Amino acid sequence: MIAISNNSHWIEEKLLQVNLVDTMAQPNGFSRLGFTQEEKAAHKQFRLIAKSLGLQTHQDDAGNQWAIWEVDPSAGTIAAGSHLDTVYSGGGYDGTAGVIAAFAAVKMLKEQQFQPAKNIAIIAFSCEESARFGTATIGSQAICGLLDTKRIAKLKDSNGITLKEAVEHSGLNWQKFQNAEIPQNKIEQFIELHIEQGTTLENKQKDIGIVRAIAQATRLRITCTGMTNHTGTTPMHERRDALVSTARLISFVEETASQINQRQTTPLMATVSTIENSPNAMNMIPGTVTIGVDIRSTDAKLKQEVVQAIEKFISNKKKVSFHIETLADADPVQLDAHIQETLKKLCQTLNLSSLTMDSGAGHDAMNMATRWPSGLLFIPCRLGISHHPAEYTEIQSIIKGAKLLSAYFKEVHQDTTKYLNSTIQHTN
Amino acid sequence: MIAISNNSHWIEEKLLQVNLVDTMAQPNGFSRLGFTQEEKAAHKQFRLIAKSLGLQTHQDDAGNQWAIWEVDPSAGTIAAGSHLDTVYSGGGYDGTAGVIAAFAAVKMLKEQQFQPAKNIAIIAFSCEESARFGTATIGSQAICGLLDTKRIAKLKDSNGITLKEAVEHSGLNWQKFQNAEIPQNKIEQFIELHIEQGTTLENKQKDIGIVRAIAQATRLRITCTGMTNHTGTTPMHERRDALVSTARLISFVEETASQINQRQTTPLMATVSTIENSPNAMNMIPGTVTIGVDIRSTDAKLKQEVVQAIEKFISNKKKVSFHIETLADADPVQLDAHIQETLKKLCQTLNLSSLTMDSGAGHDAMNMATRWPSGLLFIPCRLGISHHPAEYTEIQSIIKGAKLLSAYFKEVHQDTTKYLNSTIQHTN
Repeated sequence: MIAISNNSHWIEEKLLQVNLVDTMAQPNGFSRLGFTQEEKAAHKQFRLIAKSLGLQTHQDDAGNQWAIWEVDPSAGTIAAGSHLDTVYSGGGYDGTAGVIAAFAAVKMLKEQQFQPAKNIAIIAFSCEESARFGTATIGSQAICGLLDTKRIAKLKDSNGITLKEAVEHSGLNWQKFQNAEIPQNKIEQFIELHIEQGTTLENKQKDIGIVRAIAQATRLRITCTGMTNHTGTTPMHERRDALVSTARLISFVEETASQINQRQTTPLMATVSTIENSPNAMNMIPGTVTIGVDIRSTDAKLKQEVVQAIEKFISNKKKVSFHIETLADADPVQLDAHIQETLKKLCQTLNLSSLTMDSGAGHDAMNMATRWPSGLLFIPCRLGISHHPAEYTEIQSIIKGAKLLSAYFKEVHQDTTKYLNSTIQHTN
Repeated sequence: MIAISNNSHWIEEKLLQVNLVDTMAQPNGFSRLGFTQEEKAAHKQFRLIAKSLGLQTHQDDAGNQWAIWEVDPSAGTIAAGSHLDTVYSGGGYDGTAGVIAAFAAVKMLKEQQFQPAKNIAIIAFSCEESARFGTATIGSQAICGLLDTKRIAKLKDSNGITLKEAVEHSGLNWQKFQNAEIPQNKIEQFIELHIEQGTTLENKQKDIGIVRAIAQATRLRITCTGMTNHTGTTPMHERRDALVSTARLISFVEETASQINQRQTTPLMATVSTIENSPNAMNMIPGTVTIGVDIRSTDAKLKQEVVQAIEKFISNKKKVSFHIETLADADPVQLDAHIQETLKKLCQTLNLSSLTMDSGAGHDAMNMATRWPSGLLFIPCRLGISHHPAEYTEIQSIIKGAKLLSAYFKEVHQDTTKYLNSTIQHTN
């Protein structure tokens, strides 16, 4: 048995190693965006940690980092992992905690002298966050063969650098990017640990969230067209002010989502997250306003209810006109039921309190689930704060997650038959 | 007597000359911003038109263009004018129509063989619009000695060019900029013609608006601070969404202003014209939103009522906090009463319908009025559209304005005593 203090120290050290500096000492958080030198620096630390645990490392053609405890190349591989990139001014735990927890799980197995019969792989997926290019989970999409490289090559970051250029600046070859796809039989299953980025576990005082489904965002771009004019000379009743009309829509979206949550147990989130105003000059009435709306629920019908309410709200406006463009509208991803059962049972054995829940945020696991039976575990994060410098997760929470991952790696070895059934069901 | 068709053709030609291209053929309007090559090109046309009328021209140290019908250097000078710069994608009449009308008035006097006893000056003020540097009427402020050059030197345009740099790129010397100030005795009075940029004259079918007072904008910058977080994981009821709270304030400002107009005859305009949202990313709840509020009325109490209503609305918010910064809060400028009376009488003589009204927009006349008895005339513009490519004023409206200016120049010669009294009253 390993002392908790020992793991605590090790995890803290590895968090620092990846985050390079003290996570608590960064008032502006981390801006470790996908395919930047900052992400590469974190990937280098990933390889150093892997080597310190005796794992083999390689980088695939999409910049994903692999650390493999290879026992038999012909045996199946159990994969676990998350990502090391962050949003602008993000925290040091979103993604990173999951990668470190997977390493800690392997460390525990090694210290317990466990002899695996299957290979265990830890993956740090490249560019999980949409912050840089507006598109998320690029590395895991490549592994799963889900990436349309033609469509995304020209996406630009805020400096005008295209995704293709960023990938090539980082030392990869864009033409080979899709070669990162993994054959079906190379992986048996996948499990990801991630911070919850919400308050459910904290409020209910649970150690572990076992995720049933991942909500995929329905995203709308709504443009309101009125008429610009001089602010000092246009009487109030003659205005066609696009910002005033959009402000009413923003309130309406919030009210509609709040009302749905009052009568439903499945959470629904609707957010007007972006806004662009034109001409955006002090003495000119706003003529055109474009907003981005992000709608999430694991119940696709609730998302549709919000979209329909918005469509009704904006119809037949007289002074302004609205146009809706649907940017994304994918159904929720269901995670593997057998893996959920196994995790629940293991929580009881380990004396960890657990809760079955849904994920409002997208994760690499949602891509992996399209190819392999996949699981997703949440650990609490303080006040639900994430994508923010104040993001924080207790080391003890990461240790509990690592223990569960470690127990899961062992359990999978004893559970081959049931597990293979699950795979067959899934690929059907 | 001059045929109307003759002046019509002349004015149309001069509008084209200043606007360089057909005003109606510009789908994106004009972007002839202050201290740019575009403004300089229009100033060059100003000098050519002046010379074609036999006027002397010079540029002062603030880039203002002067065209002078000099009859006696020791006599008084009656000044008229407006500006030739535009906002981004503005129209071809805002400012320009007033300058051309003043030239047309001089042309009429010359064709009538009028022999003035006073000098007549036509001014094209530099950089009247706030579009480039966020500060308006720079040229006329310099003439009036109202400019704080230290405060404004470092104001930047959207390309990061400072006002000082822009002035020097345009061939002027920033150190000498304030030398443009004119001694009190060099000008007797000032009159400006401008398009209304509103619908009052058009709706009431009046030829001329005689302006009583100019509303100066009270401008607020209001910052709402909430908390950014992940859009997919933060329950609706736990959010501190700065954009939702700001949207309610935007609606409130519009409703407050509309209600005041329902019970008041003095117009009040309140506009949330600018908005900046942070982090403005699709998957992040808005954490900080900053808006610009522009409040105008010739009744300072009504402006104050809006400010107080906003202060009350934002007080004691629990989930977000608001901070108000007052950028500007000047009292309305009253124009010379005697000039208004003279203009009213001349309209009757010329069979022009007129209306005494207030100006919601600032104009160069508001600066000139701090130094010399000043008047401001409006002519109608189609649908009240201004600061927009669709801005349009009929040539016949400009001709009517030019006739009134022409008659006014003559009237001032017969009205020296009354006029001087007015000056003395004003400078007291």
